[in-house]
Amino acid sequence: MRGNIVVGQSGGPTAVINSSVAGVYAAAKKLGVKKIYGMVHGIQGFLQDNLIDLGEYLDDETGIELLKRTPSAFLGSCRFKMPKIEGHEEVYEKVFEIMEKHDIECLFYAGGNDSMDTVKMLSDYAAAHNKPQRFMGVPKTIDNDLPVTDHCPGYGSAAKYIATSMKEIIRDNESFGVEKPTVCIVEIMGRHAGWLTAAAALSRGDDCTGPDAIYLPEVTFDMDKFMEKVKHLAATKSSVVIAVSEGIALADGRFVCELGNASDFVDAFGHKQLSGCAATLANKVAAETGLKTRAVEFSTLQRAATHLASLTDINEAFQVGHDAVVAAEEGKTGMMITLDRNGDDPYQCGTSAYDIHAIANVERPVPAEWITEDGCDVNEGYEKYARPLIMGELQPLFINGVPRHLVRK
Amino acid sequence: MRGNIVVGQSGGPTAVINSSVAGVYAAAKKLGVKKIYGMVHGIQGFLQDNLIDLGEYLDDETGIELLKRTPSAFLGSCRFKMPKIEGHEEVYEKVFEIMEKHDIECLFYAGGNDSMDTVKMLSDYAAAHNKPQRFMGVPKTIDNDLPVTDHCPGYGSAAKYIATSMKEIIRDNESFGVEKPTVCIVEIMGRHAGWLTAAAALSRGDDCTGPDAIYLPEVTFDMDKFMEKVKHLAATKSSVVIAVSEGIALADGRFVCELGNASDFVDAFGHKQLSGCAATLANKVAAETGLKTRAVEFSTLQRAATHLASLTDINEAFQVGHDAVVAAEEGKTGMMITLDRNGDDPYQCGTSAYDIHAIANVERPVPAEWITEDGCDVNEGYEKYARPLIMGELQPLFINGVPRHLVRK
Repeated sequence: MRGNIVVGQSGGPTAVINSSVAGVYAAAKKLGVKKIYGMVHGIQGFLQDNLIDLGEYLDDETGIELLKRTPSAFLGSCRFKMPKIEGHEEVYEKVFEIMEKHDIECLFYAGGNDSMDTVKMLSDYAAAHNKPQRFMGVPKTIDNDLPVTDHCPGYGSAAKYIATSMKEIIRDNESFGVEKPTVCIVEIMGRHAGWLTAAAALSRGDDCTGPDAIYLPEVTFDMDKFMEKVKHLAATKSSVVIAVSEGIALADGRFVCELGNASDFVDAFGHKQLSGCAATLANKVAAETGLKTRAVEFSTLQRAATHLASLTDINEAFQVGHDAVVAAEEGKTGMMITLDRNGDDPYQCGTSAYDIHAIANVERPVPAEWITEDGCDVNEGYEKYARPLIMGELQPLFINGVPRHLVRK
Repeated sequence: MRGNIVVGQSGGPTAVINSSVAGVYAAAKKLGVKKIYGMVHGIQGFLQDNLIDLGEYLDDETGIELLKRTPSAFLGSCRFKMPKIEGHEEVYEKVFEIMEKHDIECLFYAGGNDSMDTVKMLSDYAAAHNKPQRFMGVPKTIDNDLPVTDHCPGYGSAAKYIATSMKEIIRDNESFGVEKPTVCIVEIMGRHAGWLTAAAALSRGDDCTGPDAIYLPEVTFDMDKFMEKVKHLAATKSSVVIAVSEGIALADGRFVCELGNASDFVDAFGHKQLSGCAATLANKVAAETGLKTRAVEFSTLQRAATHLASLTDINEAFQVGHDAVVAAEEGKTGMMITLDRNGDDPYQCGTSAYDIHAIANVERPVPAEWITEDGCDVNEGYEKYARPLIMGELQPLFINGVPRHLVRK
């Protein structure tokens, strides 16, 4: 590569999105790229010429190792969608102007569906205007809902966090129940796709039966059947733990999380009160059964818990960053690196570059054949797919009792 | 020791309460105790003669190492308060009857304030009725609110989880904020004492400034001052993260968590909706500032996350269990083992046995001199106290990507 490069991060962070930056850096360094820039707060910061020189942070191996152990977007993220080209040519021209100013030959963008749209728009503009710059997508999303790629970097670590925390919550809930069970409802991210919620099943093993039911947004939520199931479980077990996606919805399209706020409730300050679907369901179960209930939300922890990241995920996040640079070096543009599974036992995964037009703005749900017939669990097909993705650990660097991170100056 | 012993667990579990059982077992084994029983679901199960033989699980070192890595109460817990003796003699006689049946010479009970009350009542009854059996308390509580002892096993691990997760949440929140900050409110356990909430301060280091404010239940919560502070932070920072105890209350005594439910709100099913204080505050901030807010509750995770336990805490939990047996062997009864700090740099801690009457039912708050003058943070006095308690890690045994636990058959 003759010129410089820039890498950016976009959308909700993951536990391993920084490993992709490390991979981009390592590959570019090997190719002798002079300046490896990072855009601060994604394309939004880039449009304001807000760049840092990654060499200042990563020029020694300690920096790269710390970056792999740092949650969130080290470079800063954004939720900025490129406007349509027609009528907004100046935004696009601005991107190319800044690229030319810094002699940036190739732009790498790590993100999910929306971020891949940015890559598509910029590479389309370059093609239409005969611009030489190249644009490559690096997949990242805990939601695991990008098409074409076998899975997305970020998912394995979120799944490992969910499986581990779910198991610890089940253990905690089992401590009681000498007279009546406590019903614990755990809410997991993923409004449109149930990949994260399905990961609750990975808590299962010889020492844990896992959650008693798993409700994905791919299946219409039937409140009566849910209540029936909970009552049956409560009558036969000393501990009941249920995993629900934040995105479960009734047949009429209403989200369960909206039901808790259906009336015009205002709190003591006159504000509308919002609550999640776990709280809504826990309240309903408590009211109808008199049982003790508990609502747990993993919230941002599931995308930020790098202390429990999957080593497989860290390595693959690094790999897709690395291979995006290799593909760009070969002259590719307007593509995203995909992970291609070559085997399950032992698990093996390679990469390739795929046309970004087939990827941007497409969401992939959990396949119906991996959901059990009664609609409230996943089967061994899912486990076979997901288990390899949570394997392995990378011990954090603990200083004064807490993990150390790499931060921008 | 001539006879057998029994150990029980009571109250809310911690990440390390099983290490105390391991400590009791190891010490009794060394003393040649023949049968080391565990009571299933505490004194409540004991009254139903529900015992297991711990030798079946712990007779090899793998069992003990797995037990140390197992969250929750391995034996099962209960929330059972012994009735007052007068008029309920039959309950007490039942305890002694079961002890005699199994030739149990000494009973060890791991728990917090309520559980120490059980030890007190039983040892008082034994003294009043010339019973030879002995009763020893083993301290355990994430709340860290037992008096006399420097700190409680269970606290260090909860504090390590809180500090680590707080840091990961801060990192996540910092990823955004390119235009306006997101205000994230994190709710931490501890209704009466702020020890756990204070642990949010341990996220601080060279790479993290920690939460922007910490609100303990020891300080009266002033809603106007809180809103003023949040608005000031939001105007000057690109990320705002605030730690609040679930127990913060206004001058008139109302809990903040009650304010979100002050009106007679019922949800779509006709049920009263409850929400936590973080959600209440986040809603209020959103309504008054228009900023994006987020409420996070650590919930049971803070007492169940053995995968992130403090090695110091694990070792001390083991030690207090071990030393309770040693004290009982010396003929002591009606006492709890305390942790006595002998030095800060390097940290050193011994144990002694202390009269249970001075401990049961007494709650110890965070000392006023460790709270900053403005009432919304803790100072270096707290850090000096707490930092040593979160030091060190014990790597879980990961099998199939998740930590393996020891479970009862």
